[in-house]
Amino acid sequence: MDPSIVREIHQIVPENRVFLDLQERYSYSYDASFGEYLPDIVIQPQSALEISKLVKLANQHRIPVYPRGSATSLSGGSLPVHGGMVLDMSQLKQKCIIDRENLLAIVSPGVTTAEIHRKAEEAGLFYPPDPSSSHISTIGGNLLENSSGPKGLKYGTTKEYVIGLEVVTPTGEIVRTGGKTVKNVTGYDLTRLIVGSEGTLAIVTEAILRLIPKPPARKTMYATFAEFVTSGVAITNILSQGILPAAMEMLDQQCIRAVENFKPIGLPTDAEAMVIIEVDGHPLAVDEEIERCAQVCKEAGATSVHIARDEQERDKIWQARKNVSPALAQVGPTKISEDATVPRNQIPAMMNRLREIREKYQLNLFVFGHAGDGNLHPTIITDKQNKEEMKRVEDAVSEIFEAAISLGGTLSGEHGIGIMKSPYMEMELGEEGLRLMKLIKDAWDPNHILNPGKIFPQPGQTKVVLTDE
Amino acid sequence: MDPSIVREIHQIVPENRVFLDLQERYSYSYDASFGEYLPDIVIQPQSALEISKLVKLANQHRIPVYPRGSATSLSGGSLPVHGGMVLDMSQLKQKCIIDRENLLAIVSPGVTTAEIHRKAEEAGLFYPPDPSSSHISTIGGNLLENSSGPKGLKYGTTKEYVIGLEVVTPTGEIVRTGGKTVKNVTGYDLTRLIVGSEGTLAIVTEAILRLIPKPPARKTMYATFAEFVTSGVAITNILSQGILPAAMEMLDQQCIRAVENFKPIGLPTDAEAMVIIEVDGHPLAVDEEIERCAQVCKEAGATSVHIARDEQERDKIWQARKNVSPALAQVGPTKISEDATVPRNQIPAMMNRLREIREKYQLNLFVFGHAGDGNLHPTIITDKQNKEEMKRVEDAVSEIFEAAISLGGTLSGEHGIGIMKSPYMEMELGEEGLRLMKLIKDAWDPNHILNPGKIFPQPGQTKVVLTDE
Repeated sequence: MDPSIVREIHQIVPENRVFLDLQERYSYSYDASFGEYLPDIVIQPQSALEISKLVKLANQHRIPVYPRGSATSLSGGSLPVHGGMVLDMSQLKQKCIIDRENLLAIVSPGVTTAEIHRKAEEAGLFYPPDPSSSHISTIGGNLLENSSGPKGLKYGTTKEYVIGLEVVTPTGEIVRTGGKTVKNVTGYDLTRLIVGSEGTLAIVTEAILRLIPKPPARKTMYATFAEFVTSGVAITNILSQGILPAAMEMLDQQCIRAVENFKPIGLPTDAEAMVIIEVDGHPLAVDEEIERCAQVCKEAGATSVHIARDEQERDKIWQARKNVSPALAQVGPTKISEDATVPRNQIPAMMNRLREIREKYQLNLFVFGHAGDGNLHPTIITDKQNKEEMKRVEDAVSEIFEAAISLGGTLSGEHGIGIMKSPYMEMELGEEGLRLMKLIKDAWDPNHILNPGKIFPQPGQTKVVLTDE
Repeated sequence: MDPSIVREIHQIVPENRVFLDLQERYSYSYDASFGEYLPDIVIQPQSALEISKLVKLANQHRIPVYPRGSATSLSGGSLPVHGGMVLDMSQLKQKCIIDRENLLAIVSPGVTTAEIHRKAEEAGLFYPPDPSSSHISTIGGNLLENSSGPKGLKYGTTKEYVIGLEVVTPTGEIVRTGGKTVKNVTGYDLTRLIVGSEGTLAIVTEAILRLIPKPPARKTMYATFAEFVTSGVAITNILSQGILPAAMEMLDQQCIRAVENFKPIGLPTDAEAMVIIEVDGHPLAVDEEIERCAQVCKEAGATSVHIARDEQERDKIWQARKNVSPALAQVGPTKISEDATVPRNQIPAMMNRLREIREKYQLNLFVFGHAGDGNLHPTIITDKQNKEEMKRVEDAVSEIFEAAISLGGTLSGEHGIGIMKSPYMEMELGEEGLRLMKLIKDAWDPNHILNPGKIFPQPGQTKVVLTDE
């Protein structure tokens, strides 16, 4: 980076929060997805004002700006694909205020989502979004990717809990959107436009989150099914009974086997599907509802049904779900995590398509996910050194995207588009839908400073490319 | 209107759905707000394709286009303030499909919200948003204004239930946004940008709504309070107990008296506040929760507490709330309905400000609203023929807006900005916030064809003007 620009940066942020050494920059070159890109400079800003000045400077010199939380993105959200400036937002974590009277949390972007959970619960309140990385991922990253976790069916997605923001715009202005009221129709909803924009429209410097009273009780069960399709019947029948579970998680046979292989807990490895169901709410209601969920599963043909008798048994059930990721990590060195999402009644059809893709390309393809909201996580375990296999992975991933869209679903339920799915944007959105998005980006970020290389396809890009020759 | 343009319109829509006569156009010159504006032509389109062609024609000849549902807007949302073309969307009501498996409704814009409620409930499902005009207002209008009604606290606003749209853009393209999945992060959230855009960014031609299982039981109560401030304490304490009521409605003393004057039901006219609370959910839970709500109200100092023993008694309680509007209509010929919204803990402070404004300007000012989400409806009853009084109304309305913003609230919780509140937009949003919105409008609607004269202030506009001398 040009030394005169570095000097200008040092006038905004002191040297001890500016990193130029290769080793330091290397630590910021990757995330939880695929690929490595070295930034030219890494800065740890500590205020909206510093960020505002840095972004103005970046506009002046046309330097790409990449905001980064804990870099747990599975789609390359924070990767500095065009080099430039990485803003390490994980240090901006001064504020985590719980406002009990207004059921709000006011938070800095670098606070972890788990910290918000903890503080809300101490006040008897509840922040429902819970991406599986919440113990490490920052709320800023969560919001910008709109990652939500298992409770989308009952509680909605992250977006439903963000009612106000302070942001730095692509031209370096500090702006507040929304506010402290759940209802607000003063002009366009910039809050919800920025949430989920993957850091291409603004950098979040503060967020106002809506909380709800903590449900006083919860009950958890799991059921296994010899055939995948009957698990889908059970899920539909539960919802038809007027029960809205807090979570309905699904593991396919490959996942059950991987989990049993990793840490055996006695799951039947001949089952095609396992479903974990959790209800929450009033203590009297959850006792009755979990019994009914179990009954519906039995009637649909579940081969086994277990209701957790206490919190310890509950933790054991959830451990099976949480063991999926470490279990898969043992299968091979490279993990490609997708999150194609389909309307709930298309889950069985999508599972059939995924099975065909697994067989056609002879890959280690595992499927788990949030059955309640149709958000599946097809995951391929491979080895990026194996060029021949990577070609098959590319083709398989393309077919997964095509299958989701053809079943009326979407490329991404919560991981974001990032760098891998952009070639498929037009297939889902149409030329005009994509153009409307681009018009917003171009109007707000005329110099394309903020997180460039994400979401929008490059000219001529039509297919997933994982290998770089 | 130029006869050659009329001929072009007749080639798109047959003559029996095109209206040019003064009497016919007059029927489309007003809504439930203030003011009358005559359109040049009224068209009843029956498909997205017809609308697409009309909007392209309008762009060619620079004719303003005003989409209009049932014209129940309280902010002038559908008023053809610059003349031009009114599109009567109330005839586009072919589709109202309930998809039980996916918990969705797929609806045409002209379907009334009450019709969606009815069809969803027949299928054991529930569409929570419920603006008080829902028996007559169309879902298209509801979405574009993001009007939500009493259930915002527990169930969120209308926006939270819209997951996909088909729209005609300001340049006449037909575009689909979102889809049939609750989770969707493929690009920017155009769905939520368009919902609440007051018809300035797109015309809705179809919507995909999220439904939830119908809560199997509900219980309702009301409490009256000698002092307003104690009603606020009761509301906060209920939420602190982990109870999330479906609705918490508030009437001030002026409203209680007007209602008792209109149709006496035995409310204490010396009470400063009445609060209606409804809980819904599992039958065992609601029985216990409503008892606890009553207990909390008593402990906070309620002068009377009544729990409805059956649905008939419930209807009687809600009748008091529903009688507010007809009761106020008897007070005077002109009604100015505002919906300034404040953080919940600022309701008592806002009530004090409203009392001061009532006394300062000597006006008939009534306050009722959704206490759970801070969405108040200060309503002034006046006579627009009385120019002197109207000047006082203008000043009072300005002070109401200023009070809401100074207490950390917003100009509008659900009625929209429309034509009256635009001068205050910059006060709430700041210059840059307003500019970001304008950039989107200008990029999508370069000829300013769609609903011009709304939301954005005219140059030099700095104050409410109700009189037109």
